[in-house]
Amino acid sequence: MTHTVVSSPTKEVVIGFDRPFVIIGERINPTGRKLLAEEMKNGDYSRVEADAVAQVEAGAHMLDVNAGIPLADEPAILADAVKLVQSVTDVPLSIDSSIVEALERGLEVYQGKALVNSVTGEEDRLETVLPLVAKHGAAVVAISNDETGISEDPDVRFDVAKKIVGRAADHGIPAEDVVVDPLVMPIGAMPTAGQQVFRLVRRLREELGVNTTVGASNISFGLPNRLGINSAFLAMAAASGLTSAITNPLEAEIRQAVQAADVLNGVDPDCVNWIKTYRQPSEGGDRERRRTGRRNRG
Amino acid sequence: MTHTVVSSPTKEVVIGFDRPFVIIGERINPTGRKLLAEEMKNGDYSRVEADAVAQVEAGAHMLDVNAGIPLADEPAILADAVKLVQSVTDVPLSIDSSIVEALERGLEVYQGKALVNSVTGEEDRLETVLPLVAKHGAAVVAISNDETGISEDPDVRFDVAKKIVGRAADHGIPAEDVVVDPLVMPIGAMPTAGQQVFRLVRRLREELGVNTTVGASNISFGLPNRLGINSAFLAMAAASGLTSAITNPLEAEIRQAVQAADVLNGVDPDCVNWIKTYRQPSEGGDRERRRTGRRNRG
Repeated sequence: MTHTVVSSPTKEVVIGFDRPFVIIGERINPTGRKLLAEEMKNGDYSRVEADAVAQVEAGAHMLDVNAGIPLADEPAILADAVKLVQSVTDVPLSIDSSIVEALERGLEVYQGKALVNSVTGEEDRLETVLPLVAKHGAAVVAISNDETGISEDPDVRFDVAKKIVGRAADHGIPAEDVVVDPLVMPIGAMPTAGQQVFRLVRRLREELGVNTTVGASNISFGLPNRLGINSAFLAMAAASGLTSAITNPLEAEIRQAVQAADVLNGVDPDCVNWIKTYRQPSEGGDRERRRTGRRNRG
Repeated sequence: MTHTVVSSPTKEVVIGFDRPFVIIGERINPTGRKLLAEEMKNGDYSRVEADAVAQVEAGAHMLDVNAGIPLADEPAILADAVKLVQSVTDVPLSIDSSIVEALERGLEVYQGKALVNSVTGEEDRLETVLPLVAKHGAAVVAISNDETGISEDPDVRFDVAKKIVGRAADHGIPAEDVVVDPLVMPIGAMPTAGQQVFRLVRRLREELGVNTTVGASNISFGLPNRLGINSAFLAMAAASGLTSAITNPLEAEIRQAVQAADVLNGVDPDCVNWIKTYRQPSEGGDRERRRTGRRNRG
């Protein structure tokens, strides 16, 4: 059974086929958030702090931290943000950058075993990011594109993922520390985008034995009621074997889909988490607790 | 490609892997509806009529009609209900009874190609229901239990389904006219209930090439927020290959899950149905229609 173990100084999170689905909070990311970008650039991390706390309170098991701001000192800002977030929450982090130096600085200040987001199948990325991941004993998100771009053929994307897993092994990184992102296309532009992900996730699990993650919201780009698509997508991908996602835990519909998927995949034992979350207040009174003998569990 | 074609005098509905998911409205069923049972027993079909119209307006593609009322003349009531529903709606019907004579009477008055709900793997059921289905050129729901009851082992349930499909062929009923119900257990009592259905649906599709249906709501029996479980269950089962369900189309959450699953399974071409349903009113104005050239499609 594949277990990707990541940690903070006080908390371990396990991504695995037999474990509850792991929600990696996506909010700490200045891309498309002008105000946040401006603040982070000026050393104001108040919104980062608020986003970190709110996401963990909402149920995020991990947080993604990204500091991709044009014309800013991304390595320094990412390191600051990682330190700040670790000072106000206890969940493990995904350190997210396309700049190797930023990943390096983030890893240097990180306490625990981080998830590095990400490496691709491009030669220069493989040979700069993987040594860094190995040096810090981290886990890594492997994105299934390479020099030729993102293939529309899912079998090509599978082969890229396989190559990355192989190369990681060359660097001493076990397959269980590689979490593959099969890449999600907008379904409005590519009608097979959903089926591709479901099929890829299943193959990655059955043939490579690796955990998987997706940036979930891309699937609904350009469509109305994006939350409706995103939440069904997460449940369907979880049915196909997806074990984590970078998504927005502040959305009740997303949380519900993930929690229901846990129940239906048999990884919410006795439905305890579901019942705790959705039991009606009137059912939570003393009488009910006495009747069910769950005084200390609810 | 397996196509189960059912029809009313004016409408054909196709259940198939490459088709939108078929919602069979479950409401016309006196089980657990005391008032409806009392009314139907006394020949008052006003609620049946209202339920029929409301479900079709909400988006049901077919309607299940059940008249299982203790100590009543079920064959006569079922026939009356079938005639009534066909007089007020144009969707094909699923004629639902555990009494063979009731199925017979329902089929006699039905106009079009009906879905008979259901036959099991029990010898006496096979040899009474299947000849009836064959005689009327109907399709049939095959429930995967037999004399020994409902097995908790999904492989045994698969074998029962296979036996029914084989026996149907002996009676001249092609596999495409057998829609298998793999049986849904309450997940609160059996943690593997969801995974069993997902696996069975996939095997039934890949190995027997048959369409599938489920009574969706049983999965959440005894749990809070049943709709949350039911809607995720339908999306996850659809990702596994489920092509229809007997469920409640009056629930917006159910409809949304099914419509999203259609988008994500690539069977809502150009996302037309999704966009039509969920586009914001403000996006539907003249300016938008001109811009997208969709004046007659929205």
